[in-house]
Amino acid sequence: MAAARFDVIGIGNAIVDIIGRCDEAFLTDVGAAKGSMRLVGADDIKQIYKKMGPAVEISGGSAANTIAGVASFGGKAAFLGTIADDEFGKIFGHDIRSIGVTFDVAPIANGAPTSRSLILVTPDGERTMNTFLGISTSLSEAQLNANLIRESKILYLEGYLFDEPQAKQAFHSALQTAKGSNRKVALSLSDGFCVDRHRGEFLKLIRSGIDILFGNESEIKSLYQTESFDLAAKNASEDAKLAVLTRGEKGSVIFCEAKSIEIAREYVPELVDTTGAGDLYAAGFLFGYAKGYELAICGQLASLAASEVISHIGARPEVSLNELARDKGLI
Amino acid sequence: MAAARFDVIGIGNAIVDIIGRCDEAFLTDVGAAKGSMRLVGADDIKQIYKKMGPAVEISGGSAANTIAGVASFGGKAAFLGTIADDEFGKIFGHDIRSIGVTFDVAPIANGAPTSRSLILVTPDGERTMNTFLGISTSLSEAQLNANLIRESKILYLEGYLFDEPQAKQAFHSALQTAKGSNRKVALSLSDGFCVDRHRGEFLKLIRSGIDILFGNESEIKSLYQTESFDLAAKNASEDAKLAVLTRGEKGSVIFCEAKSIEIAREYVPELVDTTGAGDLYAAGFLFGYAKGYELAICGQLASLAASEVISHIGARPEVSLNELARDKGLI
Repeated sequence: MAAARFDVIGIGNAIVDIIGRCDEAFLTDVGAAKGSMRLVGADDIKQIYKKMGPAVEISGGSAANTIAGVASFGGKAAFLGTIADDEFGKIFGHDIRSIGVTFDVAPIANGAPTSRSLILVTPDGERTMNTFLGISTSLSEAQLNANLIRESKILYLEGYLFDEPQAKQAFHSALQTAKGSNRKVALSLSDGFCVDRHRGEFLKLIRSGIDILFGNESEIKSLYQTESFDLAAKNASEDAKLAVLTRGEKGSVIFCEAKSIEIAREYVPELVDTTGAGDLYAAGFLFGYAKGYELAICGQLASLAASEVISHIGARPEVSLNELARDKGLI
Repeated sequence: MAAARFDVIGIGNAIVDIIGRCDEAFLTDVGAAKGSMRLVGADDIKQIYKKMGPAVEISGGSAANTIAGVASFGGKAAFLGTIADDEFGKIFGHDIRSIGVTFDVAPIANGAPTSRSLILVTPDGERTMNTFLGISTSLSEAQLNANLIRESKILYLEGYLFDEPQAKQAFHSALQTAKGSNRKVALSLSDGFCVDRHRGEFLKLIRSGIDILFGNESEIKSLYQTESFDLAAKNASEDAKLAVLTRGEKGSVIFCEAKSIEIAREYVPELVDTTGAGDLYAAGFLFGYAKGYELAICGQLASLAASEVISHIGARPEVSLNELARDKGLI
């Protein structure tokens, strides 16, 4: 196996988040299930945007947030995803490149606009996402730079890619490329409803050899169609080589072969916005894993990164995670 | 004088802020004077953006921020400013309308893009602005809805408008319309360098009958070309009917005829980003003034609004200023 230029390469939807506050009644009004991600069309996103309050625009995208987190820890990272030749595409490209991430997918002109997600944050800090995929539906095998994948220790894929047939194909192709170079492959289940839409395929994929599986409680329960977290976790630990499951306030658990390691949740003085919590958890874990730290440390790095991102608006770290981790004595 | 539909109408540049953190060396590198606003061209803004770190996009614009603040206090407000038919124009229009502000200037298609300002925030929380005016330079008399001006108790103008000949003409025309309907006219000096560029005209304007003059220490010193705040303040209090001068940590002073009222600075647990401090100070004062509160209360409302906006990223309030003011027993 050749030396790896990158610790992690992520493939996902390149999204700009439009984040605003709302009350619970607003979610009902626009028909959104609290805490979930749903795909909406061009007209729907216009309607919801028109109704919602003032917002801020910040680069997002699940795997992209994870990659931003890896870079913030000081890891070498790359990202593959599709943007349009428009203002949101420029914002996305700028933000990810400016933190040292390799991102060289060419913008697509004269097509759909760059993806955006209207993220509604309720007073309890929970986020509910309404995503218009736009140009992300054009993500294809042709756009993936196979060399970058071969040169990365870990390939990280977001489950959301399964929502589009062409992206799903690109996903499988990337996976084969990584496997062909003996790289590790990590998958995030992304969202409970997303799991619901693609359960069979996800299971097949995981059983075919995913090295690291990330999921939260609702996703993993949805995957194994059970109300019992313990049962779902047992299944996951049998199916994936490494299952890393988050449980919100209850912390998280890493399952590796017959062992399980419980990771306590990091203390957060004020929960402001949960957007990116799972993404940054994955960032900490993947950074630690790529750097060869033991699993308990990987979990603590994960927990630390998640705690930073939920203490402010937006899904990417506002401070250096490398410094945070050093201050904690973790790295 | 007919009953007024609006408490305040603001005229200014309609800007989307692109806010990112940087160190002092970065300001030197891009040749920006810390704490100031400078106008940059299309190429320069691209170059600075390329060099700067990740950013968030939030609606801004000096007078627009003030108007957003008036609305947050529960005042009836309107805004006049020019946007392009592009994503940033949509963001600006959405954000200001979604808080109940009347904003019905039609976007201009096929011209320059919507104005944007790269705002660099140093570790001390101070902001330095690099503004590309874009379509704002097209602000003209023809776009001003004279009826809205006649129907507003106070017309609020930002000094930045003087940087463009056409906008300056619109500024004067709006002022005449307001005066013709016996409305009050308020002016913000905007920026020390802006005052430097237009000192003679500003003085003439203020002496011709500005009812409320807003300025900070550096602006007012620049206006009267003196290093003495006391001397500058004395001059301002003679030239304007009401001079409202902010002094950062030292609080602010309201000069009205022979009297002066000192307003203490509101306690801020953590100064995060000074963007919008002066704009929101003006918002609190104008809201109080339009509602007929005594000057000391107007000053306290001003101070309260400024303290809220510097405690987070972005130049517009994140919480209801009306509720904040009620909690303080001010209204």
